[in-house]
Amino acid sequence: MRVLAFLDGTLADPDAPHIRVDDLGLMRGDGIFETVLVAGGTPRELRPHLDRLARSASMLDLPEPDDEAWQRATRQVIGNWIGGDEFALKLVCTRGIDGLPGAGPTAFAMGIPIDEKVIRARAEGVAAVTLERGIDPGLAERAPWLLLGAKSLSYAVNMAAVREAARRGASDVIFTATDDTVLEGPTSNVIIARGRTLYTPPATIGILPGTTQAAVFRGAERAGWSTKIEPLSTADLRDNDGLFLASSVRKLTRVHTLDGDRLPDSSAVHAELAKAYEDVYA
Amino acid sequence: MRVLAFLDGTLADPDAPHIRVDDLGLMRGDGIFETVLVAGGTPRELRPHLDRLARSASMLDLPEPDDEAWQRATRQVIGNWIGGDEFALKLVCTRGIDGLPGAGPTAFAMGIPIDEKVIRARAEGVAAVTLERGIDPGLAERAPWLLLGAKSLSYAVNMAAVREAARRGASDVIFTATDDTVLEGPTSNVIIARGRTLYTPPATIGILPGTTQAAVFRGAERAGWSTKIEPLSTADLRDNDGLFLASSVRKLTRVHTLDGDRLPDSSAVHAELAKAYEDVYA
Repeated sequence: MRVLAFLDGTLADPDAPHIRVDDLGLMRGDGIFETVLVAGGTPRELRPHLDRLARSASMLDLPEPDDEAWQRATRQVIGNWIGGDEFALKLVCTRGIDGLPGAGPTAFAMGIPIDEKVIRARAEGVAAVTLERGIDPGLAERAPWLLLGAKSLSYAVNMAAVREAARRGASDVIFTATDDTVLEGPTSNVIIARGRTLYTPPATIGILPGTTQAAVFRGAERAGWSTKIEPLSTADLRDNDGLFLASSVRKLTRVHTLDGDRLPDSSAVHAELAKAYEDVYA
Repeated sequence: MRVLAFLDGTLADPDAPHIRVDDLGLMRGDGIFETVLVAGGTPRELRPHLDRLARSASMLDLPEPDDEAWQRATRQVIGNWIGGDEFALKLVCTRGIDGLPGAGPTAFAMGIPIDEKVIRARAEGVAAVTLERGIDPGLAERAPWLLLGAKSLSYAVNMAAVREAARRGASDVIFTATDDTVLEGPTSNVIIARGRTLYTPPATIGILPGTTQAAVFRGAERAGWSTKIEPLSTADLRDNDGLFLASSVRKLTRVHTLDGDRLPDSSAVHAELAKAYEDVYA
């Protein structure tokens, strides 16, 4: 089941049509979104998600999100959820209807069950491939019109990359830059463990600042780990004690196979970090 | 006024909602489109548009478009159009509803009036700016998952580039590659006239093959011009007798100002080529 609430707090039938064909979100992928994990009735990292929504809005020259309205829509969905203990909460905001700027953005929150595959991946890990993203790490700051690091609705490339992974016998992707820098996954951030230190690349290279990555870092620090935000190279993807993809819904997922090569077992490191992450919400 | 027909030939109210919030076209910009110019009741370059739609579908691993159904929907819209002599016909196809793959793609054709600004630009020309696209010309062939040259619904970057142009006092953009190669506009192809020869870059560098560009070339050849499809550099944008942007709805529009510099007057060349293009349909 799904639960749909518009930004004004109205509940609506998620199986009914609500969007006009000339909505710019549909016609141009012109809008922004967030995916929040709700667990035990509580949205995790809602503040960072709303901050990131505001950051994406700013990058796309969309109106600043109405924080209170988003929190209300979030409560509406959570209050009406009758599915499992955990679900994905999508927050979506488009530029609205083409040629009707006065109509304002189209905005809604929707609760969606978590895919079985994602639940399995949390426990079993995933096979990932590295794929060229074709950009250099300085591009995001030079060329803000490319929207690198904005969570826009224009995700066709992210989806195509996952299909390319499937063709290569994997289920996820790590994008790399032209200089061999590690970027991010199509829907996740990359984290590496080496000794008692966690590493992730800086958002300035044109990637999304990770809400779950930040939560994992916070949990790990409380558990005595050090954390570093610094550029990683593709060599770092193999030279480590654990390679992980972090995202709201998949939480911390370990990569067990990279570009077809089985990586050394990182289950113990993963278990410790997964616990540190859960302890943030205990 | 607008006219909306779904791919099954059903006419529908364009002001009513028809799309579910969980349509992947909306959630992920995951779909494809074409914009066809209809003039005097005839869709221009419909065959090349449908071929390009099929090419985009293939790049996005979408089902091959049903040619006959698209032609029927096109006829439906044209037959019910009561607006001006010329209008834009959008063909849109999304991957359909998330988690309901059996439901199949969401597909419709919609007639839309042509914006006054576009009509003015055809006559008066436009100011354009060059903007970095951050990719190299070999990337499209190396990395098909980046969907370069597919006309996907993920156009947020194209729209952001046009807003950047507006910030710089212009109304259009010419994207450039990392090696200073000329790519395309966000919604157009670049054509240069030099002497009696027209030039445009090859689609292999990761740009859309232009339906209008091809029609202009056909018309120009009939009028005694030579045409060449070869890489252009940013220097070529100034070293010419006319710089143009071609797209279905704007037809052939001359660029009168580039990066803030007024270019030599190309009105006469433009008039000759615009006539050669119209003569294709005479």
